[in-house]
Amino acid sequence: MFTLTSPSLSVHSLSRSGLSAAKLLKEKGLSPVVLEARDRVGGRTFTVRNEQTKYVDLGGAYIGPTQNRILRLAKEYGVETYKVNEEERLVHYVKGKSYPFRGSFPPMWNPFALMDYNNLWRKMDEMGSEIPREAPWRAPHAEEWDKMTMKQLFDKILITCVCVSARRFATLFVNVNVTSEPHEVSALWFLWYVKQCGGTMRIFSTTNGGQERKFVGGSSQISECMAKELGECVKMESPVYRIDQTGDMVEVETLNKETYRAKYVIVATAPGLNLKMHFNPELPPLRNQLIHRVPMGSVIKCMVYYRENFWRKKGYCGTMVIEEEEAPISLTLDDTKPDGTVPAIMGFILARKCRKLCELTREESFKFDMSTNPQPSLAQPVHYEEKNWCEEEYSGGCYTAYFPPGILTQYGKVIRKPVGRLYFAGTETATEWSGYMEGAVQAGERAAREIMCMMGRIPQNQIWQTEPESKEVPPLPFVTTFWERNLPSVGGFINFLGVASVLSVATTAGLLAYKKGLLTRS
Amino acid sequence: MFTLTSPSLSVHSLSRSGLSAAKLLKEKGLSPVVLEARDRVGGRTFTVRNEQTKYVDLGGAYIGPTQNRILRLAKEYGVETYKVNEEERLVHYVKGKSYPFRGSFPPMWNPFALMDYNNLWRKMDEMGSEIPREAPWRAPHAEEWDKMTMKQLFDKILITCVCVSARRFATLFVNVNVTSEPHEVSALWFLWYVKQCGGTMRIFSTTNGGQERKFVGGSSQISECMAKELGECVKMESPVYRIDQTGDMVEVETLNKETYRAKYVIVATAPGLNLKMHFNPELPPLRNQLIHRVPMGSVIKCMVYYRENFWRKKGYCGTMVIEEEEAPISLTLDDTKPDGTVPAIMGFILARKCRKLCELTREESFKFDMSTNPQPSLAQPVHYEEKNWCEEEYSGGCYTAYFPPGILTQYGKVIRKPVGRLYFAGTETATEWSGYMEGAVQAGERAAREIMCMMGRIPQNQIWQTEPESKEVPPLPFVTTFWERNLPSVGGFINFLGVASVLSVATTAGLLAYKKGLLTRS
Repeated sequence: MFTLTSPSLSVHSLSRSGLSAAKLLKEKGLSPVVLEARDRVGGRTFTVRNEQTKYVDLGGAYIGPTQNRILRLAKEYGVETYKVNEEERLVHYVKGKSYPFRGSFPPMWNPFALMDYNNLWRKMDEMGSEIPREAPWRAPHAEEWDKMTMKQLFDKILITCVCVSARRFATLFVNVNVTSEPHEVSALWFLWYVKQCGGTMRIFSTTNGGQERKFVGGSSQISECMAKELGECVKMESPVYRIDQTGDMVEVETLNKETYRAKYVIVATAPGLNLKMHFNPELPPLRNQLIHRVPMGSVIKCMVYYRENFWRKKGYCGTMVIEEEEAPISLTLDDTKPDGTVPAIMGFILARKCRKLCELTREESFKFDMSTNPQPSLAQPVHYEEKNWCEEEYSGGCYTAYFPPGILTQYGKVIRKPVGRLYFAGTETATEWSGYMEGAVQAGERAAREIMCMMGRIPQNQIWQTEPESKEVPPLPFVTTFWERNLPSVGGFINFLGVASVLSVATTAGLLAYKKGLLTRS
Repeated sequence: MFTLTSPSLSVHSLSRSGLSAAKLLKEKGLSPVVLEARDRVGGRTFTVRNEQTKYVDLGGAYIGPTQNRILRLAKEYGVETYKVNEEERLVHYVKGKSYPFRGSFPPMWNPFALMDYNNLWRKMDEMGSEIPREAPWRAPHAEEWDKMTMKQLFDKILITCVCVSARRFATLFVNVNVTSEPHEVSALWFLWYVKQCGGTMRIFSTTNGGQERKFVGGSSQISECMAKELGECVKMESPVYRIDQTGDMVEVETLNKETYRAKYVIVATAPGLNLKMHFNPELPPLRNQLIHRVPMGSVIKCMVYYRENFWRKKGYCGTMVIEEEEAPISLTLDDTKPDGTVPAIMGFILARKCRKLCELTREESFKFDMSTNPQPSLAQPVHYEEKNWCEEEYSGGCYTAYFPPGILTQYGKVIRKPVGRLYFAGTETATEWSGYMEGAVQAGERAAREIMCMMGRIPQNQIWQTEPESKEVPPLPFVTTFWERNLPSVGGFINFLGVASVLSVATTAGLLAYKKGLLTRS
């Protein structure tokens, strides 16, 4: 049997996954220590408070139905959620024009393109249904699909000659969901990813989907509450650089020159960040290679603040799906506070567009000089916030890791396989909402229970647990007649020019700077 | 102007690239310090000496014409080269049968397949000719080719319905050259890789190609000689885990608790191994993401030793190109010493086959029990050596890093872009024979000259230097009538069963263990 000394367990956390693990362990009477690399907790969630914004989530922010674990934690800590505004019409901006719409996906007007488009989502969900959440490498067509990129799969599925618009939106769908390009990701992996979030509708929707809600006060509160609860045992600014398993206890060294000894260690980082640590003995060959093969996506999250949320008055909710190669922002959502104060639009700069902006200096890419405009209008931004996750050493990117072609079938099975007394958490190791806050909690709690099982405290069949459904945020089924309900009418084909001004405002910052940047790029 | 204090320059070396840089700097009167992670120099070259083998290269071993820098170093240190035996016939093993052949590539017998096959090499070299060595992302079709995997390119080029054999060999061509799978690598990157090695013939050939020669006494000698020359300033077992550029001097900390200060630092590791270091300030966003996106290939190198090199007596040189899914080894070469002693066959276990073996324990995968065979024959192995490069923490794999689709165009341009006072070497940053020992030397010397340029010691136009052609190992042109010379005769279509025994011997170890392993794999 194991006896514990204190500190008995060390968790290297770059995310709420580590805190979730530690919280559960502490509740069970163990004595975890959390080693946090940064000077803050929360990892890829990052709530900043200031006068102009009250609070703003520069990292992970959205939650929705079926994300029951993170909702349970929020409830425990009294952190409330509110619905992202989707009352008014959404806007689809394409080929320089704006088309208002309602529903989760912008409609296709060409009947042939529509059929193709309709078939695309149906096909992706059908393929997803073949893929086991917990072992996508065991899917009947795993080998075949893993050898394909999503671009190849789109080329296969989208067969009509008028499918340019469907193809363009399919690209955006990948960009928005996994912050990478269709030609960069394995089809098997992407299909798995969408499936374990509940399908194409659940992952992409605001209402009834992954973006339905935000936390009042910001998402980092959950991590902050967990850290507060854990107290002294959370060590900040303690990046781990060495893990030694050669002795009786696992020895962990941090950059701030501390050494910790523990019976077990949970490494709760994105897989690629395992590389920040030097291991003795070396990791087994497949894990040693896996961690070089699962890069993080590329995203800059930005928020533009206005005096008034004038878009609502004009009948737009603030959601814009932007298919325009020259526009840096691909998706916007209303980011006004639930009480209607601090009017703001949130925009994502994704994948290829994010990397183009990374080549510019911060000054070149996003500089507001409000003073140069002598007559500020309602649509004149009054404040700006942004976070480029590509520059974070201890994230490597956001939202999550992606699998390039060929990797999931060859290396996937070791992603959460323990190595000696090391256990692996982090949202990438989850099987439900992996890549999201929900996945981080699932993974952290599972890793904690793996250790409790090793210690003989729980049986093996209790390691993986299902979570009761949230009463406050219940999921609705997506009815299969969705596409019928959303079939476009030719009369709806209106180029509502007025909307273009909303777009131009919301993306002023990026777009102008981007064009400027293009001139200076070498 | 810069004034130097001693130690003035720190080189974190995981390869001969770092030693090459330090050697050049010392020759110019500077005072470099080399921080070597391992307890030996040489990085991905690794010469082991023992009674059974005299010496054996478990890592990088082969050199050939146009690799003039490594040949220059070898000459300087008096390390001689010898030709890998290719006197007798080669063997192409396919669908359970052995076909002897001569030349660099196994012939195709079906005339339609032959045309396709012929066209494949021609097309790859043509496409390569469009790609700038020093900036493949500027190729006219860079974007298009980078969105494609090599598998997709093969599917495009190999159009006949009888091209299964050509396709199989095309896969092997990728496996052998870059230790990864066609569906894993960007077409743009692979075409660039082949091009900067001198084309399809130069990269794959033994005679007149990249595998023409080996070093008498082993390849690590070059690194060992450099290390000896550099003397005290080479610090062994000193993995760097922290690089701080916030002060006047760059501060470098090593796992063995030493701190070094230097005016400049050359990071001479594979790009992905930059991740072993914690940087202050953080790396710029594109480099921060690049280093998560360029994994190392997968290879186990193994050597089987015999009492006699009986294959030569039977008229075979020892080269076998093996296209057989169940056989772990894909390519063999004669590894007998130049004086005819220590008869041996070298075999590569590559990419998907390597990863399958990684799932087995060492005991399961390669266990010889010579004692169980009561009557050892000539073809009975007497000794075995192997090295699985996937398990090396400070290599991450071998031979070199590969670029998955989409990465070269988006991140390639920062691969050797200095970051403050950090300069980047390592064979991956080379523009001629990148991935080889030659590339490591080119990269190390270039990085050294970048620093000399920054110090005002040489002008910018001297950073990149061409190398005079080796007199001892001159390249021959590959005549364009090669395929005519090698056109197969139907009479040559002999299933030479006798050769099968050579094969079975050379791959006994892996093949049997592999099959055994398959039974035990979960």
